[in-house]
Amino acid sequence: MAPTMPLVVASLLLLLFSPSLAVAGGRRLPPTLAMRRRHSPGDDHGGGGGVPDQVKYETRYYTQRLDHFNAAPASYGTFQQRYLVNDTFWGGKTAPVFVYAGNEGEIELFTNNTGLMWEMAPSFGAMLVFIEHRYYGQSIPFGGNKTVAYSNSTMTGYLTTTQAIADFAEVILSLKANLTAYTAPVIVFGGSYGGMLAAWMRMKYPHIVMGAVASSAPILGFYGLSDPYSFYDVVSNDFKSESQHCFDVLRSSRSELDKALATDAGRAQLNHTFNMCNGSKVDDIPGLLDNALVYVAMTDYPTSSGFLTSLPAYPVREICRAIDHPTSGNDTLSRIKDAMNIYYNHTGGLSCFGGASDEDPYGMFDGWNWQASTEMILTMSYGVSNTTIFPSEPFNFTEVIADCRDYTGLPPRPYWIEQHFGGYDIGNVLKRSASNIIFFNGLRDPWSAGGVLKSISKSIIALVEPEGAHHVDLRFSTKEDPEWLKNVRRKEMRIIADWLKEYYSDEAIA
Amino acid sequence: MAPTMPLVVASLLLLLFSPSLAVAGGRRLPPTLAMRRRHSPGDDHGGGGGVPDQVKYETRYYTQRLDHFNAAPASYGTFQQRYLVNDTFWGGKTAPVFVYAGNEGEIELFTNNTGLMWEMAPSFGAMLVFIEHRYYGQSIPFGGNKTVAYSNSTMTGYLTTTQAIADFAEVILSLKANLTAYTAPVIVFGGSYGGMLAAWMRMKYPHIVMGAVASSAPILGFYGLSDPYSFYDVVSNDFKSESQHCFDVLRSSRSELDKALATDAGRAQLNHTFNMCNGSKVDDIPGLLDNALVYVAMTDYPTSSGFLTSLPAYPVREICRAIDHPTSGNDTLSRIKDAMNIYYNHTGGLSCFGGASDEDPYGMFDGWNWQASTEMILTMSYGVSNTTIFPSEPFNFTEVIADCRDYTGLPPRPYWIEQHFGGYDIGNVLKRSASNIIFFNGLRDPWSAGGVLKSISKSIIALVEPEGAHHVDLRFSTKEDPEWLKNVRRKEMRIIADWLKEYYSDEAIA
Repeated sequence: MAPTMPLVVASLLLLLFSPSLAVAGGRRLPPTLAMRRRHSPGDDHGGGGGVPDQVKYETRYYTQRLDHFNAAPASYGTFQQRYLVNDTFWGGKTAPVFVYAGNEGEIELFTNNTGLMWEMAPSFGAMLVFIEHRYYGQSIPFGGNKTVAYSNSTMTGYLTTTQAIADFAEVILSLKANLTAYTAPVIVFGGSYGGMLAAWMRMKYPHIVMGAVASSAPILGFYGLSDPYSFYDVVSNDFKSESQHCFDVLRSSRSELDKALATDAGRAQLNHTFNMCNGSKVDDIPGLLDNALVYVAMTDYPTSSGFLTSLPAYPVREICRAIDHPTSGNDTLSRIKDAMNIYYNHTGGLSCFGGASDEDPYGMFDGWNWQASTEMILTMSYGVSNTTIFPSEPFNFTEVIADCRDYTGLPPRPYWIEQHFGGYDIGNVLKRSASNIIFFNGLRDPWSAGGVLKSISKSIIALVEPEGAHHVDLRFSTKEDPEWLKNVRRKEMRIIADWLKEYYSDEAIA
Repeated sequence: MAPTMPLVVASLLLLLFSPSLAVAGGRRLPPTLAMRRRHSPGDDHGGGGGVPDQVKYETRYYTQRLDHFNAAPASYGTFQQRYLVNDTFWGGKTAPVFVYAGNEGEIELFTNNTGLMWEMAPSFGAMLVFIEHRYYGQSIPFGGNKTVAYSNSTMTGYLTTTQAIADFAEVILSLKANLTAYTAPVIVFGGSYGGMLAAWMRMKYPHIVMGAVASSAPILGFYGLSDPYSFYDVVSNDFKSESQHCFDVLRSSRSELDKALATDAGRAQLNHTFNMCNGSKVDDIPGLLDNALVYVAMTDYPTSSGFLTSLPAYPVREICRAIDHPTSGNDTLSRIKDAMNIYYNHTGGLSCFGGASDEDPYGMFDGWNWQASTEMILTMSYGVSNTTIFPSEPFNFTEVIADCRDYTGLPPRPYWIEQHFGGYDIGNVLKRSASNIIFFNGLRDPWSAGGVLKSISKSIIALVEPEGAHHVDLRFSTKEDPEWLKNVRRKEMRIIADWLKEYYSDEAIA
């Protein structure tokens, strides 16, 4: 029921894509998934020059249990879980194993973009393992058939975070057993949702992973743990920090767009200015704009990037530059069009707006929509205050939950994540019951508002970078990296080295 | 298929009752559950004089989710989970809540026998909460109908430790929310299997319970973590420690019994000596003896007790006294009969052996048989070395697993508990990722061989008592308690007070 599930499907794209908050006549529209354009051949997954040469791996499959936590006959079902392994640099049975906790998508995406692991492997003598999350990519239960696995909630019901983490634990133990490398220390990495999984793995399975690098992991993004308006506040502040004029233009843009959309003459003008592709409508423009603004805030990297779409370095700055110094015209709509060009047409090959042809190249949405409607209800991204560059949207928890319920037909569980993994009073809890976690957050990233921003103990360390964006630390390094980013990675490397040193000392391994 | 499931159903009674290892013609027989006699009205649950006066509680029910870890429609089923509450001494919203993690049986049994909680409540201003374990007592899924809940593995499949612990977590959070006592510190107590649950709760839910008293919790009793012969070694050593003669008589008793059972004259003699009840056979005698020996080793308390049957103080000593100074005759069989009288006829009302009428007064066996055949496979209790007072029984893991599979029709998961909760290298793991756990073990208790016997950190403390038996520390105190036992309880009280002090300091609660 598309028209009735606005914020739900909306916030589903979260962590990687953000909701369209397009409002037409007071009624929120569902986001246009097509607002993202297909990756062009010129795109890359590695941060500027195609997949780096060192990204080489062997693809393996583990016969994974469908349901770890029950013993009903159905629980014993299995599926093939994919994982990618590079052991080129591995130093042998007691050397480290770096594991990536796969997010909501094909594992290659994260494998190709987690440069930190590839770059640290040689000096640590580490094996690299990237494990795909159940229900994504090729790791599909029920015979590997995605249509079947997503056909109804009885089939999709095994898509939960606890199952996913237990999967990772089992793959790791199996891998180590096969290598008779029982004492090899395992460090788990993850960014965004994968970072949440990494942190939770260290909390729940400290006997399996001895440390976690949780990058841009909004583990406090749930109801009652963080401000439900915080996500859009951060996005807006990113633009305001570039220039007040940029912020003001963006803030006024929606009323200008709405005004133009309300008349035939206005729509014709919009069509002319924005050159909409065949099959796209000028009504999509507000959604396309919102999507661009949110996404560049998340990926406001200091170098050009191609994580999900090609972008220039510092894209927030570039967008504001386009707005403040327009080339098409001085009116607001022309400025907006120039701004959208930065996001949708960085490589210059685009002749029209809105002509996406593959809205889900990494296979994310079926799974994430489900997860975000059942337990991963990150309320921090549902409200929009009236001081942002977006149309305001009062946070209404009841409505959020109702929308989730409409999507799955099942009661959402907005408190489950906190019940199971904690969050309230996290400092006092974790300082006495956990260790060895790095929480990286870049404050340009709107998800940072749900992150752990203060160090909790000498081994639960918050690395907070005012200039950083969404898991920027995990990306491949480039010659253009600013000093603060180099320093973050150096710190992470040093902290991991300290953990390993302590581990080898504990285990009396020379 | 009774004749083919010997060690399985055997070790199922574990933690409270032990296997009969009766061997007839090389073929092991299933244990005779009837070997335990019904509680007579003179019995008590409180340790010598009926249920103590202070045991008063309100019975409540929580509508519990059937399956915490999946989101299939069936997962949303609910059942009524019973819990007992006493808030007489509770000091209010920031005062402690002491929770008992219910074992495999009706919750009243543990409520009535966990004197430590009742005795500590006044000085700590603590609320007491005893939560019944799912699938036991009145806390039965599928409409509260035990027959239905145990009718097939699809129904029984939700009986797992992870679900049980998640139940406890949810009840606690709900209770605190209803009291608006969000910062009230919760300490979880448990003995035996309940002690395992308590320790695991602190490890997995440190944000919900801030400390755990895990008494006689064999969390290392699983395959690869402890010696599979250790259980019966400890039982045997208990008797040897009383007198070498006692040990020798017990060790020779089985061949004497087998010899007598092999001839008509011998059987007549046995019948005369042991005065078997109508409906019982002399063939039951070896099983009755084994049961008595194992059970008194577990409950070798320094005072008379009535936890599950009435026993004198120091029952191992009493049994050896009966053997070393027999009243019925100097032959081995008469000595054995006198020994069995200690266990089966302490209160003197028994006129014959083997006449049990209710083998499962606390509703333990259906559930525990299932648990012990699926994931709670405590291999420490499956082998019997050839130096014990029992017929030797080589540990055969393959056979144990096959027997488990025969019982449920499903593949057993002998590694699951270690995979999920850990165990290997527990000291190095927990010292960096947990805190606030007391592991009490009495070395007279055969389950102590699977316990944590060394302190791990300044707040993960092993209290080990050479003279102690199965969770003796949790029992109501008596005037006859030896000094070491008083000291253990004092230590536990002091440790808990330290935890609370630290907690209130962390939380800045005056």
